[in-house]
Amino acid sequence: MRGADLIVRTLADAGVELCFTNPGTSEMHLVAALDHEARMRSVLVLFEGVASGAADGYARLADKPAATLFHLGPGLANGIANLHNARRARSPIVNIVGDHARHHRIFDAPLTSDIESLARPVSRWYAAIEDPASTAEITTTAVAQSFLDGGGVASLVVPADIAWQEVQDQTARPGNRPGRASVPEERIAEAAEKLKAAGSPVVFIGAQACREEGLRAAGRLAQALDARLVMETFPARISRGAGRVSATRLQYFADGAAQDLKDADLLLLAGARAPVSFFAYPGQPSSLVPEGAEPFLLGDAGEDVVAALDALADHFGAPREPALDPAMAPPPLMQPDEKLSAPAVGMALARHMPAGSVICDDSTTSGLGVYFLLENAAPHEWLCLTGGAIGAGMPMGVGAALAAPERKVITLNGDGAGAYTLQALWTQARENLNVVNIVFANHSYLILNVELARLGLAGETGGKARAMLSLAEPRMDWVKLAEGFGVAASHARTAGEFDRALASAISASGPQLIVAEIA
Amino acid sequence: MRGADLIVRTLADAGVELCFTNPGTSEMHLVAALDHEARMRSVLVLFEGVASGAADGYARLADKPAATLFHLGPGLANGIANLHNARRARSPIVNIVGDHARHHRIFDAPLTSDIESLARPVSRWYAAIEDPASTAEITTTAVAQSFLDGGGVASLVVPADIAWQEVQDQTARPGNRPGRASVPEERIAEAAEKLKAAGSPVVFIGAQACREEGLRAAGRLAQALDARLVMETFPARISRGAGRVSATRLQYFADGAAQDLKDADLLLLAGARAPVSFFAYPGQPSSLVPEGAEPFLLGDAGEDVVAALDALADHFGAPREPALDPAMAPPPLMQPDEKLSAPAVGMALARHMPAGSVICDDSTTSGLGVYFLLENAAPHEWLCLTGGAIGAGMPMGVGAALAAPERKVITLNGDGAGAYTLQALWTQARENLNVVNIVFANHSYLILNVELARLGLAGETGGKARAMLSLAEPRMDWVKLAEGFGVAASHARTAGEFDRALASAISASGPQLIVAEIA
Repeated sequence: MRGADLIVRTLADAGVELCFTNPGTSEMHLVAALDHEARMRSVLVLFEGVASGAADGYARLADKPAATLFHLGPGLANGIANLHNARRARSPIVNIVGDHARHHRIFDAPLTSDIESLARPVSRWYAAIEDPASTAEITTTAVAQSFLDGGGVASLVVPADIAWQEVQDQTARPGNRPGRASVPEERIAEAAEKLKAAGSPVVFIGAQACREEGLRAAGRLAQALDARLVMETFPARISRGAGRVSATRLQYFADGAAQDLKDADLLLLAGARAPVSFFAYPGQPSSLVPEGAEPFLLGDAGEDVVAALDALADHFGAPREPALDPAMAPPPLMQPDEKLSAPAVGMALARHMPAGSVICDDSTTSGLGVYFLLENAAPHEWLCLTGGAIGAGMPMGVGAALAAPERKVITLNGDGAGAYTLQALWTQARENLNVVNIVFANHSYLILNVELARLGLAGETGGKARAMLSLAEPRMDWVKLAEGFGVAASHARTAGEFDRALASAISASGPQLIVAEIA
Repeated sequence: MRGADLIVRTLADAGVELCFTNPGTSEMHLVAALDHEARMRSVLVLFEGVASGAADGYARLADKPAATLFHLGPGLANGIANLHNARRARSPIVNIVGDHARHHRIFDAPLTSDIESLARPVSRWYAAIEDPASTAEITTTAVAQSFLDGGGVASLVVPADIAWQEVQDQTARPGNRPGRASVPEERIAEAAEKLKAAGSPVVFIGAQACREEGLRAAGRLAQALDARLVMETFPARISRGAGRVSATRLQYFADGAAQDLKDADLLLLAGARAPVSFFAYPGQPSSLVPEGAEPFLLGDAGEDVVAALDALADHFGAPREPALDPAMAPPPLMQPDEKLSAPAVGMALARHMPAGSVICDDSTTSGLGVYFLLENAAPHEWLCLTGGAIGAGMPMGVGAALAAPERKVITLNGDGAGAYTLQALWTQARENLNVVNIVFANHSYLILNVELARLGLAGETGGKARAMLSLAEPRMDWVKLAEGFGVAASHARTAGEFDRALASAISASGPQLIVAEIA
């Protein structure tokens, strides 16, 4: 058998079912191998950033890796921004990069570049197959490595001659999936003492602790202690809606975050690191830990913090189930003729979104307005922009819909962010995915106007600076862009128009796009 | 003054006039500084790959650097593929990447990553400003470094606090622009001896030798020796058309290249390296130098090979001016009802393209069909995909049009390649650039179907492999995509329709797009 067939068979043996790809000549034997392996589905994308974002969305829903397949250094480079988000989300991904044949590298052909240097910053593990006899073992290791330390990107470089040459059949036993390490009992005991001594503790959660079971455990503990329950600003996945424990999401700007953590004397960190400012600002501290508060790490994202939270909750005598806020009635329809706004979009989602929906949020300023309105909507999963690299929404939608075809996937996109990777719409159409894409059209990089003002620069700059933050000239026509990629689209200017468009898009099958005109 | 203002003033002092950007919060003080500096024009893009491709196209026309301005590691990453092409083209670019404030880096905020590791593979020079007192000096060095060794990407990382804090005024004298090193006389003499002894020499040119003056010098030499004149397959810029010396462009596949170089016993390399296969293939050599042929390096892309070629031509008694093929009449219009094809597009271009036009070619299989038809068209410049990273055509068009607003710029795009960076259309519309974009719609990654067949894999693969190379389901509607970004567009299915559409697009001002339906 060829090396390529061995690699793909080994991936399938290890449970990898899906490959997001945009291959080139050096990957042709891998394309053939994907064709030969019945257990592997290949999904073509028009741009690599769609593949990496899709693999991230898939991992957050499926809790296992998809493969990506990229064409040498430049193909990988196009996928790096969303691999950066995946790294921050600790999403398991087996990131396969085709390279020139080993003997061809020294000729420095046009597509040659330093793949390792490009891959390392986003990879928790990196290897190139240099010895054909190690093909199966390295491939198996890549899958296992994608699970370690809470999950991450395992980058595997496959030279073309490794893929094309005949290799001896090798069986690498896919190891058991590495689980999360238990939090040591002494640390749990120390945490219990700290919590007991604290006057105003905050249970500060991230990673697994923001999923349903983690929230339940964290909610039990916080309620038993009468402590605040606060989560990171951008967790990979938040379980939300009716029936779930709700936690305060730490505000983005330092002044808001300071309010959320005001007077805390202990931050119990569960799957989260001590909070830091997203950006630095002149004269402001980078750490968001309030003065006088001690951060104490119960467990990091690679450890089983859910069990540790439950153990602590038991220790403090919490009942098995946390108390829940009573489910609210769906919010009323806004005045139908009211101008559309992010909260109006949130209200419409609260009315129409079916239980189990997945929201992929890449709408910096608008997403927050939606978020608050869904506190008591039908239970749903909310995926955040973990690494700050915009252009993640529609690609994550591709992966989430493939991981969970029975769910309705909703992507929230700023018009600036959406323009980064709009090619995802084509894959949504091609695979007929169950995705409703919402594009907030404010015709600006609105967050940057906010930042310019916060930095005191708005007054001292003129038209050239304003133009750099404006998307108004020309306005993008997102209905045409969506239709150009084969996705049905509509345009809403009022709360009522949006409400009707959303109801219709959710009841349709296949991808849809709604332009939410909020300028 | 602030560091940011000092940086931008220093760039302007060194002759940098243009900045392609998609900034973020950490670049706000640089945005303000760009606003303050009247000598600097800022051009906003929707995606960083457009900025890097535009800077490449600009450099190839203007022979000097534009700046790019990117948002930390992920912003840079989105620009890497076209920086890779720029590196191969030896295009001078001052690649500015904003970073977190120095004190903020250790907090590992979400957007933190290893920028140096990402930048090194595409950069001929890299520095981060760590000491405010060195701001002007490092910035001046970046511009100078972009010219060295024939040109390249100088990457300059600017931490946010370096940009925002007050610095002492510093004047760094912009050095003289570093010229190309002369080829040593001994090497020219050695080349003369080799040429004299050779029975069947080939003058093999690249880089500057493919420009008008280089072709004139190389043509003189080749004619005096009765030698073949062959150029690299993908030079950065080829001066072509009536009145220019014409050289054979080395064929892409090894069998064709072997024909072009058949029986050569000497390859005189002028601005080119010894030719190598773009990809490796099983059982085929990587080098394209024929057996029995000696490659001799007259001078590399960083040296003044044009003067060296002229010196050699003088040595062999060549007349001052090379003989030229007589200009051909424009080719006749094809049968108007004939199905559209790449050669028919070439014929229409030969009929309508004004003198001085610039062609940015990113259409792997179709571009060649066009290329052959323009041998005797009005004089024009042809920019190649130097590094093999597709998605360069429309972005290079942005930069070329800004470098030479009096010229007509024509981009040739495969539908696969064009989909990589179609956001360039928006910047073309925003800046009202004089660009005619042609998209060859064959609804497939056609080159990959060719490669699959050449590798003998077509017979052993089925629908899954074919689907990975097909863009037919769904077909992109490029008219809608263009209009969605504010660019007027039309669709041509016959030679006559295309001829009319092209005549109309060329006479219009502002960007246009024509879909050439060739499936």
